Amino acid sequence: MGENLNCVLLISGGLDSTTLLHYLVKKKPYKKVYGITFLYGQKHSREIEYAKWQMDLLGMKHHYIVDLSGIAPLLREGSVLIKGSKDIPHLDTIPIAERIQPPTYVPNRNMIFLSLASAWAESLEISDVFYSAQAQDEYGYWDCTESFVARMNQVFSLNRKHRITVHAPFLNMLKKEILELGYQLGVDYGHTWSCYRGEEKACGNCPTCIERLKAFEDIGQKDPLPYMEKIK
Amino acid sequence: MGENLNCVLLISGGLDSTTLLHYLVKKKPYKKVYGITFLYGQKHSREIEYAKWQMDLLGMKHHYIVDLSGIAPLLREGSVLIKGSKDIPHLDTIPIAERIQPPTYVPNRNMIFLSLASAWAESLEISDVFYSAQAQDEYGYWDCTESFVARMNQVFSLNRKHRITVHAPFLNMLKKEILELGYQLGVDYGHTWSCYRGEEKACGNCPTCIERLKAFEDIGQKDPLPYMEKIK
Repeated sequence: MGENLNCVLLISGGLDSTTLLHYLVKKKPYKKVYGITFLYGQKHSREIEYAKWQMDLLGMKHHYIVDLSGIAPLLREGSVLIKGSKDIPHLDTIPIAERIQPPTYVPNRNMIFLSLASAWAESLEISDVFYSAQAQDEYGYWDCTESFVARMNQVFSLNRKHRITVHAPFLNMLKKEILELGYQLGVDYGHTWSCYRGEEKACGNCPTCIERLKAFEDIGQKDPLPYMEKIK
Repeated sequence: MGENLNCVLLISGGLDSTTLLHYLVKKKPYKKVYGITFLYGQKHSREIEYAKWQMDLLGMKHHYIVDLSGIAPLLREGSVLIKGSKDIPHLDTIPIAERIQPPTYVPNRNMIFLSLASAWAESLEISDVFYSAQAQDEYGYWDCTESFVARMNQVFSLNRKHRITVHAPFLNMLKKEILELGYQLGVDYGHTWSCYRGEEKACGNCPTCIERLKAFEDIGQKDPLPYMEKIK
C-alpha cells in the first residue's frame, strides 16, 4: 500500500481488468481507483466503451483514455491486433512452437502501458499501479509473468522520490477463477468485451473468445454477451 | 550487436543525442540508424526540427516522430517541462536537496521512450536501442544511470523471441567530453537545441543552457547558437 489511499489501474474493458476494478473498489482499502485505458491503433475499440461504463457504474470519476494511436505504425509489423496488419488467426491455426509469442502478441505492450500508468501515478503521488495479467496469459506473453512484474519493480525501485510498485494480483489465477470471483462481486459481464474482432457480436473463434467461452462453461455459467449465430 | 546491422536511436535534437547519432553513423558498424523522436507535450518542440535536419544531413531516411501529446495531462503535475505547468526555474533557485530529482525531471520519461523505441525495434527485428544518457544527468535523473540501463535490460531479457538491448555509451562521459567527441566527428552544433525555453534565441540561464555553455567554455569553443543578449 502506498502513501495515500488511491491507486491506478490499467482497465481495458475486458473480463480480467473489469473484475480487478470491481475487486479493488469493493474489497481493498483504496479510496479511489484511477482508471487508465489506451487507444494504440488496435483494430477496434469496443471494449473501451465498456471500461467507461464500468467506471461510471462504480462512481469512479477519474478515467483517462490515452490516445496513442500515433504509435500504430511502430507496432504494425509485430502484431495482428493493430490496424493495417494481417488477419487475426483462429487459435488452432497457430503452430505450437509459435505460441510462446503468438501473432496476437503486441511488442512490449505492457511495458508501454505500465510506464505511462506509472508516470501518471507519480504525478498524482500515487504509489500502487495494478494490471490484470493472469495465469493463462503466461504461455504466450512474457510481459504477463511474475518475473516481468518483479523486474519492472526492480527498475522502479531506483526512483529517488517516489517509488512505484506494480501489482498483478491475478497472476496465479485461471480465467475461470477470475470469473468466479467476479460473480461473487456482482460483475455484469454483459458489459465487458474480449473478442479481438470488433464486430456487433463476438466472433466466438478468436483465441480470446475461445478462452472466455471455456471459462464460462467451466463454472457452469452462460456468457451474457451475444455471439455470432453461426460461428465462423 | 544484434541480428542485423540496424539500430534504433532516441534522438531529441539536443547536443548529446545529436553527437550519438553522428557517432553511430560514422564509427559503428550499423548500416542504418532508425531515429525516434517524441512530442509529449513539452513546452516547445524547437529541437525536433534540428533532429530532422541532422538525420537528413546524414542520409538517414527512417525518422519517426511520435505524437504523444495526449499524455501531457498525465505528466503536468510532475514536471515543469510540460505545457500548462509552472515556470522553468533558474538552476540556482533549486534547493540542493531537491536536485536528486529536480522540477525539470519528467516522471518516468526514459522508460516511456525506451519502451516505445524497443517496441518499434522489435517490430523491425532490430536488437539494439541507443539513448544518450550522460554522466552529468546522473545527479538528478534516476533514469539516466547505469543501474537503470542494467535493470531495463533485465526486463527485456525475458522476451522469448526477440531480446532488445538498451545501450547508453555516454553514461560515463561528461558533457564536455561528448562535445570534444562531436567536434572530432564534425558535428554542427548550430543545428542542435538544448534550452528548456523555446524562444527565438536560447535563454542562457535554464539548467540545460548553463550546462551547455559551461561545456563549450571548458573545451575552449564558442557555442554557435545565438543567445539572448541580455541574459534574463
